[in-house]
Amino acid sequence: MPAPAFDDWMRARLSDVEQGLAALLPDQAAMPQRLHEAMRYAVLDGGKRVRPLLVFAAGALQDADQDLLLRAAAALEMIHVYSLVHDDMPCMDDDALRRGKPTVHVRYDQATALLVGDALQAQAFQVLAQASGAPERKLEMIALLAEAAGSRGMCGGQAIDLESVGKPLTLEQLERMHRMKTGALLRAAVMLGALAGAALDQEQAARLSRYADAIGLAFQVVDDVLDATADSATLGKTAGKDAQDGKPTYVSILGLEQSRQLAQRLRDEAYQALLPFGSEGRYLRELADLVVQRKA
Amino acid sequence: MPAPAFDDWMRARLSDVEQGLAALLPDQAAMPQRLHEAMRYAVLDGGKRVRPLLVFAAGALQDADQDLLLRAAAALEMIHVYSLVHDDMPCMDDDALRRGKPTVHVRYDQATALLVGDALQAQAFQVLAQASGAPERKLEMIALLAEAAGSRGMCGGQAIDLESVGKPLTLEQLERMHRMKTGALLRAAVMLGALAGAALDQEQAARLSRYADAIGLAFQVVDDVLDATADSATLGKTAGKDAQDGKPTYVSILGLEQSRQLAQRLRDEAYQALLPFGSEGRYLRELADLVVQRKA
Repeated sequence: MPAPAFDDWMRARLSDVEQGLAALLPDQAAMPQRLHEAMRYAVLDGGKRVRPLLVFAAGALQDADQDLLLRAAAALEMIHVYSLVHDDMPCMDDDALRRGKPTVHVRYDQATALLVGDALQAQAFQVLAQASGAPERKLEMIALLAEAAGSRGMCGGQAIDLESVGKPLTLEQLERMHRMKTGALLRAAVMLGALAGAALDQEQAARLSRYADAIGLAFQVVDDVLDATADSATLGKTAGKDAQDGKPTYVSILGLEQSRQLAQRLRDEAYQALLPFGSEGRYLRELADLVVQRKA
Repeated sequence: MPAPAFDDWMRARLSDVEQGLAALLPDQAAMPQRLHEAMRYAVLDGGKRVRPLLVFAAGALQDADQDLLLRAAAALEMIHVYSLVHDDMPCMDDDALRRGKPTVHVRYDQATALLVGDALQAQAFQVLAQASGAPERKLEMIALLAEAAGSRGMCGGQAIDLESVGKPLTLEQLERMHRMKTGALLRAAVMLGALAGAALDQEQAARLSRYADAIGLAFQVVDDVLDATADSATLGKTAGKDAQDGKPTYVSILGLEQSRQLAQRLRDEAYQALLPFGSEGRYLRELADLVVQRKA
């Protein structure tokens, strides 16, 4: 049986992810209902689900266990969404719009937004700890996710981002910040997907790591381009916010045209890294295209 | 060799915990330095370390692995401290004093306090995932900690607490809230300590669970008594805050004298539950006394 075309594959995986998230989040009828409702409001019906798709695409390399992949995908998305909920709060980016809907602290209140994020992080680790699969492998996945989410990964990148407001950054400093802030979790998505399958050899792991780094950075470069060029309705979040907040971006440092070229180069790098995987790498290749060509 | 006296045992364990936390938190010199400094500021040099002591005392029942116990103790304290840091923020309890020091958002800023809490939660799960010991057991411990910390445990209790401000609660509703808000993590401390050792039989597990429930509730009753009777300097946090915030407490529902009696009854229940453990339960008994007799 030939592997399904990318569009069909993606549609099927997105449907898996939505159903998986709905099933793995606490029931809305369970106490405390308002918190559970707010958690589901934050996570469901929205988002491009780039990280879950990366988990599944990397899992396809080694024919990984589907339940473990789904739980890894859901855990990553829960971590990602909690970071958005906290990031949107008034003491951080103070944003009212996310995924085309009012942000959690606007729809509910700040205290609820804080608790939604906190509870989603705990839920992510619980979902992963209770997955099927070899215990040693799951512990490795949990440690990797925690490292990527914590102070040497996503949270650390956000801290550096906060300190950088209004300061001129070099391209190198900007890249380091983004490797932590968004890169760490995108990278974790790829590596978790691979960990859910048969072990990779050293050369394969290094190649996958290069792929993950390249698309992690490409994702951010495109984000900066879109923030400077798209409108809020298309983005589902407030456009032009970075410039308004005095945040250094790829566009502010490199300009629009060079930023676009950088994104293309990073996509080529990602393709290059995947060469030895042959046709098993096709979903990862298609996702690299998706990341670079997306309009929102 | 006879088991050490409680005071000696406690001093040694407290020293283990301080050293363990200092070693298991990110290095202050590592980037991002300000975030790491703030994480260490929040966790180190303060706190009664009740949860870590409960982990060690429960571990003594079954001669548990000391590295696993220390990591479980550190993970629990990191979760506890992150919840304090977030709870003290202006959008929650808005408190300026904690453990006798300015709270994190006062000493640093709100965004940093938010990230400190987020990063501490991730660090807790990483610390546990990377412990020594049987993988299946560690996964069980991670799942238990995540459940206790999340929306059906601590975060859920905080959500109910927020909704209860200014509302009359029955004693039953108050108890349910506290069983989640503070009880879940105290209970997790006892159960994690036990899980780090040889498996308990069903009767023992049920007994330990009764002990954990009793001291979890006793802890909160005493907290309410102290909030109503002690001064801020003694408590290391703002006294009289509950009444001022219009929060229902054991004292506001039962009065001071009956609250004190309830705390004693709960201590007796805890003692009763430990009977079959004989002398192995001595540290847990002493901790029950400590919880009820504490002055801060």
